[in-house]
Amino acid sequence: MGNEPAHTVTRYDQELDRLRGIVVRMGGLVERQTAQAIAAVVDQDEEAAIEPPELDTEVDAFEREAEMLAIRILALRAPMAVDLRMIVAVLKMSGDLERIGDYASSIARRAMKVEPLDGAFSFSPLRAMARLVQENLHKAIEAMVENDSTRAMEVWNADTAVDELYTAMFRELVTYMMEDPRKIGPCIHLLFVAKNLERIGDHATNIAERVYYAVTGNMLPAVRPRGGAARKDTHKDS
Amino acid sequence: MGNEPAHTVTRYDQELDRLRGIVVRMGGLVERQTAQAIAAVVDQDEEAAIEPPELDTEVDAFEREAEMLAIRILALRAPMAVDLRMIVAVLKMSGDLERIGDYASSIARRAMKVEPLDGAFSFSPLRAMARLVQENLHKAIEAMVENDSTRAMEVWNADTAVDELYTAMFRELVTYMMEDPRKIGPCIHLLFVAKNLERIGDHATNIAERVYYAVTGNMLPAVRPRGGAARKDTHKDS
Repeated sequence: MGNEPAHTVTRYDQELDRLRGIVVRMGGLVERQTAQAIAAVVDQDEEAAIEPPELDTEVDAFEREAEMLAIRILALRAPMAVDLRMIVAVLKMSGDLERIGDYASSIARRAMKVEPLDGAFSFSPLRAMARLVQENLHKAIEAMVENDSTRAMEVWNADTAVDELYTAMFRELVTYMMEDPRKIGPCIHLLFVAKNLERIGDHATNIAERVYYAVTGNMLPAVRPRGGAARKDTHKDS
Repeated sequence: MGNEPAHTVTRYDQELDRLRGIVVRMGGLVERQTAQAIAAVVDQDEEAAIEPPELDTEVDAFEREAEMLAIRILALRAPMAVDLRMIVAVLKMSGDLERIGDYASSIARRAMKVEPLDGAFSFSPLRAMARLVQENLHKAIEAMVENDSTRAMEVWNADTAVDELYTAMFRELVTYMMEDPRKIGPCIHLLFVAKNLERIGDHATNIAERVYYAVTGNMLPAVRPRGGAARKDTHKDS
């Protein structure tokens, strides 16, 4: 059995599966980091704020592992076509996942600094935004796991709503700060929370774009549904 | 001559050079975007604010071109060892460069929204931060162009100073907003400018890490000089 070519193919498939397994686990980790970070903020749950930064080390280690394994597969197996595109997508996506984990940790670290707003401020726009971002992130990771270009396309189309919620929240928070300057510190932390959430949404969209390309061999247009130069947030506060 | 093996090697070398050329040009573009965006803010130069977002399309196109060419080289040439590591580094670095361009555009878009602070606010801490970030970015790109691991190490070590300047600026701005709530809007834009600058610095560090790995085959430690969990900004406002 050891000298049959089929054996080589199987080993190769196993390596590809292991590589996919790494990004799938990374995806699970950053989803968890994001969920906990959001709970920490909106429910003022001190416990939930602890784990996200701790998981960062694990996420970083997975990113390095993915890179090492990808290089190994590229060197030993000279993969072609869809496999090659998948490996390149994994290299890129692991970077996006690492950033997501980073933003989630940053949100978690701000969670308790938002406390003075408790009672006086409604977290509902943030909750709505968080729900949407988590949904997109989950779908993007599902698309990645299942090589599902249709699902990837869905994520890519859903990004606009997140941007709109962010803009609404930004305006609300600025008004709120003007009315009560003592709340400026916590409000700024909340603004950064919202900005980080929005960036998590951007990276979910990136992942969707990469899945789409890996699966179909076609790239989605350079301009996202946000429209023209607006892609990179001209219409927002930036 | 056309049938000599040397010919193939030369074609291969040309392709690798072209790939390097793409990231070098990307590097030049994002350096320019960053310089203009900073000038737009600190000198309130409306002209300088125009180009960075426009250049984004070009930077994005280069990122895609780099990816396409990398896939082509991987498929046709099955590169090994240092070449393979270089190609993987290029794939990763083009992502970092794209983010830098994105942050620079975001800074440029905020430039004129900072105007109401003119006269009342000193831009000197921001200037100091910008100088440092631009220096690191320039060095990181030089290290990339010249495959210089020593220079890469320098960038990697310089990141801490940027973080400290950011923290100082954050505190100063919060105090300033509390004293004059009418300035909250422009101050927030300036905070985001500082945050974006800091992120540009982070990506310059990433590039340095990738150059170091591509050249030496060794990865820099997972923990950056900022120290321990602090790597991802525990000691800052986040």
